[in-house]
Amino acid sequence: MGGVKRIAVLGSTGSIGRQALDVIRVLPDELKVVALTGNKNLELLERQIGEFQPEMFYPSIKADVSYRGELLSAEEIAGHPDVDFVIVATAGKAGLSPTLAALRAGKTVALADKEVLVMAGETIVREASLHQAQILPIDSEHSAVWQCLQGEESRPQRLFLTASGGPFYHYSQSRLAKVTPEQALQHPVWKMGRKVTIDSATLMNKGLEVIEAHWLFSFPFDSIEILIHPQSIIHSMVELTDGSLKAQLSWPDMRLPIQYALSYPRRWSNSELPHLDWSRITSLNFEPVDYDRFPCLKLAVDAGKSGGTYPAVLCAADEVAVELFLGYKIAFTDISRIVRETLEQHRNIGQPSLEEILAADEWARECATNLSPGRHREPRQRRKPGTTR
Amino acid sequence: MGGVKRIAVLGSTGSIGRQALDVIRVLPDELKVVALTGNKNLELLERQIGEFQPEMFYPSIKADVSYRGELLSAEEIAGHPDVDFVIVATAGKAGLSPTLAALRAGKTVALADKEVLVMAGETIVREASLHQAQILPIDSEHSAVWQCLQGEESRPQRLFLTASGGPFYHYSQSRLAKVTPEQALQHPVWKMGRKVTIDSATLMNKGLEVIEAHWLFSFPFDSIEILIHPQSIIHSMVELTDGSLKAQLSWPDMRLPIQYALSYPRRWSNSELPHLDWSRITSLNFEPVDYDRFPCLKLAVDAGKSGGTYPAVLCAADEVAVELFLGYKIAFTDISRIVRETLEQHRNIGQPSLEEILAADEWARECATNLSPGRHREPRQRRKPGTTR
Repeated sequence: MGGVKRIAVLGSTGSIGRQALDVIRVLPDELKVVALTGNKNLELLERQIGEFQPEMFYPSIKADVSYRGELLSAEEIAGHPDVDFVIVATAGKAGLSPTLAALRAGKTVALADKEVLVMAGETIVREASLHQAQILPIDSEHSAVWQCLQGEESRPQRLFLTASGGPFYHYSQSRLAKVTPEQALQHPVWKMGRKVTIDSATLMNKGLEVIEAHWLFSFPFDSIEILIHPQSIIHSMVELTDGSLKAQLSWPDMRLPIQYALSYPRRWSNSELPHLDWSRITSLNFEPVDYDRFPCLKLAVDAGKSGGTYPAVLCAADEVAVELFLGYKIAFTDISRIVRETLEQHRNIGQPSLEEILAADEWARECATNLSPGRHREPRQRRKPGTTR
Repeated sequence: MGGVKRIAVLGSTGSIGRQALDVIRVLPDELKVVALTGNKNLELLERQIGEFQPEMFYPSIKADVSYRGELLSAEEIAGHPDVDFVIVATAGKAGLSPTLAALRAGKTVALADKEVLVMAGETIVREASLHQAQILPIDSEHSAVWQCLQGEESRPQRLFLTASGGPFYHYSQSRLAKVTPEQALQHPVWKMGRKVTIDSATLMNKGLEVIEAHWLFSFPFDSIEILIHPQSIIHSMVELTDGSLKAQLSWPDMRLPIQYALSYPRRWSNSELPHLDWSRITSLNFEPVDYDRFPCLKLAVDAGKSGGTYPAVLCAADEVAVELFLGYKIAFTDISRIVRETLEQHRNIGQPSLEEILAADEWARECATNLSPGRHREPRQRRKPGTTR
């Protein structure tokens, strides 16, 4: 096998999983897929298995016996001796247990599923340290911070996570209340999965990223700042002790942070990756973040600061609320209300075990679901995007 | 002495020299001045000697025998066994011979005098390598590149040197011809010495920086690009092999790159250094560079590419032309004419010795001086700044 990295892609049919395979496909001398797992999109998973011929895959594929490969659970794959590198590109809590399995087996984990660190940051970081396993970020902001910290011996003073602000950053509260799922799914910069696209529009996503940055870089919450930067060219910045800042810039394309995690500490040339064209960039803009119009951000940061089971409750309530919004059951502005009310009803548990975290998740899903029907507006008519403008 | 760095500041009364002493003054546990040299501003040099009590200084001070310290030449100081670190903050070719002396003694040299590398880049880099001496940049752009390259194993693809564009970047050719020395000495961002301020207005300074970057980072000229960035917040950028860029940002203040050279590879907290206030930065702007209206830039880059004695001729002709302009003897737009005509008359010598470089410098000074009187406009009346607008 030489220096070829043997990679398991967990969640290979999702947006990040597909882009990870795009990177691996063009770098066959460096990277080899040895395991794939997917869940809902079985047709795509079958095609991926056909193309990459992995040695292991998840038993969601059962029908066709023509594939050669072992049927294993995501946890078994993540900790398997034949795997060097695990890309966790699952959504939500599905990544939790495979990530722990990979870390306990001392694997390098590239983490795109931010809920894993948000829900169980303390446990994840402790297990990584105990088993000398590395966690590498794939989120573009955290990859930017990580890239900027290379070669710096001194601890930075501040992190600036940039945020595009999503499609509604300058909407009034009343206009926000009328936003449709179709509108919210049109992100101005990034093409992403549905859940994270809605989280970007509410800024919940940025709040989860603050918690993720806290755990990844063991950085205090008060030193993590958010800066609205609509173009998403600067992916984040670190301010060093002498006041010098480093920023990482690139065209918004998730394949770059995915490839950096795979190539680290080196970098590889990849003609498929877009380069910034400075003859077309005339300005990079910034503005302070507005916590009032986007309450999800503050709810997330506060949950992160409180710790315990609060962040798991935050994630679960948000997942329920986003589903309700996408199903036309609640208004856009109800997402933060449901999350806030769920958090208010929760009795926090400090330093929770994994079981307590999963129990809090269950409780929050039920609580959020019960909160919605009584108070929500009538299911709205389907509208074409933009008709409410 | 413990870990205290013993520093010689050559050219301590100039703009960079004074700012270097500002940094050293507030970091007495890390840094100690052991030698000072100055030239014209004897009054300030005496005050600096009084304050820092260096063990060595340049014999421009002779009158007062009350100073305790040895009178030595700049070359003797630069190579002295009691010196660890030499800051070359002289102007023009004055830094050449002390820099070589320091490198041949294996000292670390922090170089603010860009003409040293422009005139004799090949010799300087060779001597540094032979004697395992380090050259650290103090120019803000090169410090930015250097900071961005920390921790990167792969060679970058491109450097982007940013340029404020100086005070006249959007002037027409006819308006440029009427620029007065008073106007040209008002740089919009940086406070610098007179020569470099005029060089910034003609963009000659940026051309010299391209040559400096070529030698400092052994980077091909065709991979060094210039980007006009009026705010001078991003001090330069590197584009890495995967298309990711790193930028270094800070408030424009030369004390930061000076301190970074002194603290490298660490960074030190210094409450005197300004921090960027992102609540007040709403946009960072960029535009392509216009080689036509600012011919000095292309003259410099071409001289750098041709190599040999051309860059020394460029520096000497520019120094003469800038002096003539500051003395109201020629128009602003005559600076590039005199430099171009001097270069045209020069017979290049490839791989020149130091003596040949200095002879080319002498020749170019005479040539440029002779070029000016016959063709220049009548000496202009002194005008107050801005009256020609």
